[in-house]
Parts: sequence; C-alpha cells; structure tokens
Amino acid sequence: MDIRTKFAKLGTRFAPGQEVRLEAAAPDRERMEPLPGTPVDFSHGDVDAHPPTPGAFEAFTAAVEIGGAQAYTEYRGSAPIREALAQRLTRFTGAPVDAQDGLIITPGTQGALFLAVAATVTAGDKVAIVQPDYFANRKLVEFFEGEILPVQMHYAGATDSAGLELDQLEEAFRAGARMFLFSNPNNPAGVVYSAAEIAQIAALAARYDATVIVDQLYSRLRYSGVPYTHLRAQDIAPENVVTIMGPSKTESLSGYRLGVAFGGAEIIDRMEKLQAIVSLRAAGYSQAVLQTWFAEPEGWMERRIAAHQVIRDDLVALFRSIEGCSVRLPGAGSYLFPELPPLSISPVDFVTALREQAGVTVTPGTEFSPHAARSIRLNFSQDHAAAVAAVTRLATLVERYRT
Amino acid sequence: MDIRTKFAKLGTRFAPGQEVRLEAAAPDRERMEPLPGTPVDFSHGDVDAHPPTPGAFEAFTAAVEIGGAQAYTEYRGSAPIREALAQRLTRFTGAPVDAQDGLIITPGTQGALFLAVAATVTAGDKVAIVQPDYFANRKLVEFFEGEILPVQMHYAGATDSAGLELDQLEEAFRAGARMFLFSNPNNPAGVVYSAAEIAQIAALAARYDATVIVDQLYSRLRYSGVPYTHLRAQDIAPENVVTIMGPSKTESLSGYRLGVAFGGAEIIDRMEKLQAIVSLRAAGYSQAVLQTWFAEPEGWMERRIAAHQVIRDDLVALFRSIEGCSVRLPGAGSYLFPELPPLSISPVDFVTALREQAGVTVTPGTEFSPHAARSIRLNFSQDHAAAVAAVTRLATLVERYRT
Repeated sequence: MDIRTKFAKLGTRFAPGQEVRLEAAAPDRERMEPLPGTPVDFSHGDVDAHPPTPGAFEAFTAAVEIGGAQAYTEYRGSAPIREALAQRLTRFTGAPVDAQDGLIITPGTQGALFLAVAATVTAGDKVAIVQPDYFANRKLVEFFEGEILPVQMHYAGATDSAGLELDQLEEAFRAGARMFLFSNPNNPAGVVYSAAEIAQIAALAARYDATVIVDQLYSRLRYSGVPYTHLRAQDIAPENVVTIMGPSKTESLSGYRLGVAFGGAEIIDRMEKLQAIVSLRAAGYSQAVLQTWFAEPEGWMERRIAAHQVIRDDLVALFRSIEGCSVRLPGAGSYLFPELPPLSISPVDFVTALREQAGVTVTPGTEFSPHAARSIRLNFSQDHAAAVAAVTRLATLVERYRT
Repeated sequence: MDIRTKFAKLGTRFAPGQEVRLEAAAPDRERMEPLPGTPVDFSHGDVDAHPPTPGAFEAFTAAVEIGGAQAYTEYRGSAPIREALAQRLTRFTGAPVDAQDGLIITPGTQGALFLAVAATVTAGDKVAIVQPDYFANRKLVEFFEGEILPVQMHYAGATDSAGLELDQLEEAFRAGARMFLFSNPNNPAGVVYSAAEIAQIAALAARYDATVIVDQLYSRLRYSGVPYTHLRAQDIAPENVVTIMGPSKTESLSGYRLGVAFGGAEIIDRMEKLQAIVSLRAAGYSQAVLQTWFAEPEGWMERRIAAHQVIRDDLVALFRSIEGCSVRLPGAGSYLFPELPPLSISPVDFVTALREQAGVTVTPGTEFSPHAARSIRLNFSQDHAAAVAAVTRLATLVERYRT
C-alpha cells in the first residue's frame, strides 16, 4: 500500500484532544448567540477535578533520586515493579500473572494496545472488532493492513449484558478471523460484558484457536451492583489472551503515560521486541508511579467511584429529559454515549456548534462506529457542577437545532 | 509476511540494556577467574556520573502542579513548548523550524525515529542505510518490510570526514531508494560528516527527490575543533528532510523519555497521526522538561563536553595500547567503536566473557554492521575512573583470549 493511502485512513481530525487544530467553522450568524458558562472538555477526564492518586508524585520523585538504575530499565520495564504488579494483577483478575515473562510496562494503555495489535496482526489478517468500540482499535488494525470483520453490540437494547451479537462473532471466526479485540467495560458505551458473554467469548476463542486482546482500562471503576468477569480467569488458553490496563483514567495518572499488558508470553515477548524500536521503554522515572497502583489509601477508590456515580446519575437524568434522546446507564467507567434526536444540521456540524457556541467539547459517535452518527461520547470525569451546567447548555443547543 | 517471521528479525538478544535477560553462558572453567572491579555498563551512559540538566526536575514538578492542561496536550506536544523549542532549534540548526506544523515532541528520540520511518517507508520501499549505523535503523526498515540498500562508511580510514561511500549512496538512489536514514554524529563510530559529505548528500537527495531522515541525537556534544554541518540548512527541499534530536544523552534526561522531530510538514503530520495510536503523546508532565533544553546554565554544556573529552582521550589511549586494536578518535558524542585483534573465541562469546568475568558490558559490533564483527561499542559517558579501570580489565581479557 502506498504510504499516502495508508495514512489517509489514519485521520485524527475528530480525535479527542485535537480540537485545537480544527479551523473555526463558517459562522452560522443567526444562531451563533453563545451560551455562557465554564467550558468543559468531555473528550477526556479532568485530572484537576479528580486529582491523581496520592503518593504518585512522591514515587516519581524517589525514582529521580535513585537515578540511572530507574532511568534505564529493561524494555519491558523495571523487574521489581513488574514483580509487585504481577501479584496485584493476579489478585485483581483471579488468574496468575508471570512477572518475568508475562507482563510488560508500556507508555500508556495506548502503547500497550499498539504493541499488542502490532504483535498479532499482519497484512491481510482478519480481525473481529466490536461496533461501537474505542476508535483506535479500528485504526490500529487498518494501519497494519488487517481486514476488519465488524461485530455489532446492541448496547442500547440490552440490560444485564453488553448486547454483543455473539453469532456475528462466531461468524467472524468462521470467516477466518484469528484475533478479537475489544474493550470491557466498553468504550464508548460504558457497558460491562456479562459473565455469560465472557464465557461465550472464551468458548469461541478456544474453538477457533483465536487470540483475544481485551482492553480493561476501566475495569476498576465499577458502579454499585455491577458484576465484572475477567476473561483471562475463564476457560481459555492463557497464551491466547492479553489483558491491557493502566492508571491513566480512574487514577488520573495520564500525565505520566503508563500502561501494562499481561498474558501470553510469546505475544508479550514480541511486544517487548517491538517496544525496543518504538520508544525503548515507558519513561523510567514514571514506571515507579506504578508502585502506587492497586495500593491506594484505604477508601480512596470507593470515594472516587462514588464521586463519579453521582455525576453519572445527574447527567443521565439530564440526557433523558431531552425529548427523543436515549442513553443507557453506564455500569462502569466514565463514558456516556447518548443518542441525540434528529437535528437540522449534520452530527459533525452539531459537535462543532456545541464547541463554538456552548464551550462544550464532545467526541462524535462515528469515531466509534459507522452506525452511531447520532451519538456523542462524553467523558464525565469532570467537575460535577461544570458538567451539569455544560450538559444543560447542550440540551439548549439540541433545541436550537431540533428538526 | 507471517507475524512470527516478521518478529524473528526483531531480535533484542544483544540489544543494549537487555543483558539482564540473557542466561549465563556455559562456564569456561579454565579461564573463568574473575577480574575484580566496579562493574561498568557501557551499553548506555551513566546518568549518575553525569547528572541531568539543572532545573529538569523542577520543570517537571511545575508541570504536575499545572495539572490537566499539561497532562493532556495535542498529540504533537504542548504548543507553547513547541514554540520555544522551534526558536532554539532554528538558531541551533541555522534553518527555520515551524512550531505549528513542522515539529513534534515524541517519547524519546527512539519514538521520533520510529514515527519517521513509519511515516515514510511501506512494504517493498527501498531505503539506503549506512553500515555501521544505529541498529534500530535497520530493524525499523525491516519491521515495515522495506528493502535495505546498504551504504558503507569507511570511518576507520578517513580523517576529516565520516568516510561515507557517496558513490554507493548514489547507486542506492539509482536503484530506486527514495529514503536515506543516517545518524550524524554516527552511532556507533562517533564520527561527524564533513561539510562536503553533507553537501553531497543534499545534492543527491535533491537530484533523486529523496527524503532524508537524519538522527542528530549527539550533535550538541562536539569536541574541540570539530566542525558540524546541519543537513537541513543546506540546499535541499525543506519538506524532504526530517531532523531528530532529544535530550536523553548529552543532557542525561533519558528517564523522562523525550525527543523531537522537525522538518517537512507532511511527514510531521503523518507522524502525529500515528503517534495518536502508538502512545498518544510524550508524557505530558515530561514535555515541560524540554523548557530547560537549549537553555542550560552558562558554561554547563562546555563543562559537560570537557568532562567527556578527557574520558574519551584516556579510553582511546588505552585501546591503542592493546596490540592489534584500532580505534578512531570520536569527533562527537560518547561512543567508541574499537576493533579488537583476532581472538580465540567468537566476538559474541567475548562480549559474554567480558560481562561475566570482568563486569564490563559492551554492545557487539554486529548490531551495527554485518562487517563489524570484531568491533564493540562503548558509551563512555561513565564515571571516569571506573571507565578507565573497566577498559584496563577489558585489555587483560583480550590477552586472555588472544589467538
């Protein structure tokens, strides 16, 4: 494939955080009256409103004082830190994690995801991808010239499950897919796969000898009454599963760029070989911040979850008060994925209008699925009052543009 | 290409820093008598002996205090930091750097190199690569399934130039190469390309409309009397040149993982699109450390260079005192690339023996060129006395294994 063609698919025009590079849309003079209020960027969480884990900066500082031994680690990350993490991740997921051969520390979960896809997908490989799911999943497979076999997730209609079309997943395997990549909890819909769905995914992967990469970035931020099933602890060959996590979201440690991948040793080994030429290693001093991960002060995680649950509930109520708008209550994570009523302008123009007229930044649904043009994603890990006011302005703007 | 085949080429067995993962070699009982002394790892610099730039940690700390605005930057990096860097890099290289469209901040220079190759090389593309040169250059081209056209550099015989075989470079362009990737100063040989060589490279790139990626990682650490020519300031289309630098080496800031690439806007734009799915961005807080780059205290860089020059001179004298060993005096950087006399064991076994018997870690020459089996690379950015003692032990081991 020609290099320009290859990169033409890699658009970041509407990617979260890149809005600053968009030129202003042509003014829509009649309706341009701005809605005053604190701007809210729902494209990512607000780490000022929900600050980083206590002790994170102190762990970084101690690493700088250690100096060279912490600056230069193995490409897969510091051995003692991997050792500590492996024990905690074993407890958390309910299946053993091998610190020496089965775990790699990466620059962010994005780094882990990139390496995992690069280590398993080559040109022409068929890969099953959920719609909707995190937009990078699709882009990564496209970058390595794999072929995407979409699997629909009817999250809106389901209640006690994610709503994955398991028949479509089996169909993808039957059509030759040997890799399945998905996020659980799902980004953008915030839904958690049921125990039955995860058991079925494990059974299908076993039947077709497929590799599964599961992005569990948000699996610690679970709301009351929501059960969670770790795929890697199910009846599935351990060498065929790679689990990805990191402290960038719930723990607000994104500024340090840290993630981990753990699972099958052969895949982890390939990931390390690649990391050696991609970025060498996660920043050495930052790696030490992982010492605070899964070791937060007593009650800290419960308070963080509770703080998000009240924001979730208030925003869901606001969206449900907009006529014709539907949204499923997220079971985990900090994403809302409401579907808006029909509007007189295109979804992309509405997202632009929202930013320009109401100071509200959201991510268009088409980043996550071609079938989600009327949806928008909001990361509601924000200042509570500012988020409520921003969604109130959003509701006003929906009325402004309602057909 | 099958994924296992693709990764089989990506060996990191002898990569610097990965020695900890090697199993101990079979003991060579007769000759195993250890040589006591402080272990020295010449595979990378010692940031404890040559500490990070003053103010680096303070800049990081201030960024953590800023919080969200510094944690989440554009994928290409913080705009105000790019603005400051663009001015300094313009002054340093003698040609304009565009902060908005012509510069990207990456996780280390390795990150920049990866993105630059990924943005310019696709399967089947021919790429001219110098032998010897930084091992990742070759691995990156192989990973993207490009075809390497080697260009020899006869550094040992040259005096006022790097010794690049410019005819071979033209031959590579004539054979279809549209990309040339090289390091200046050269890693591993420490030689600087002459003004005439750089002018010729520029002329050839112009004639064949080729893209040139030049890794100038060590271009600030230049020894007295060594002139340096920046390719990007020569008569060459600015859109066809990407220059890569970073503060990991001379400035000892490797633990923060920072690099930059600057040059042609189209390539930089592709690099950013890719960074969005590779690692999102260089760690947000770390980016702030670049505020100290090219803004070191008065006299700091001169002292750093002087400290390295005395180590260089002492080690070069030691290597030259070994019968049959030759080494060229490096003009810049902190690498020595001596060629050892013929030994009774293979070069790889000698490198292992050196580590096990003498506590001295070096990188085998074959990582840099298939024609450099008798050479080893040492990063002499070390404690002066420890480095001298280590090379003295190395000389003893050469005698132990001399044929």
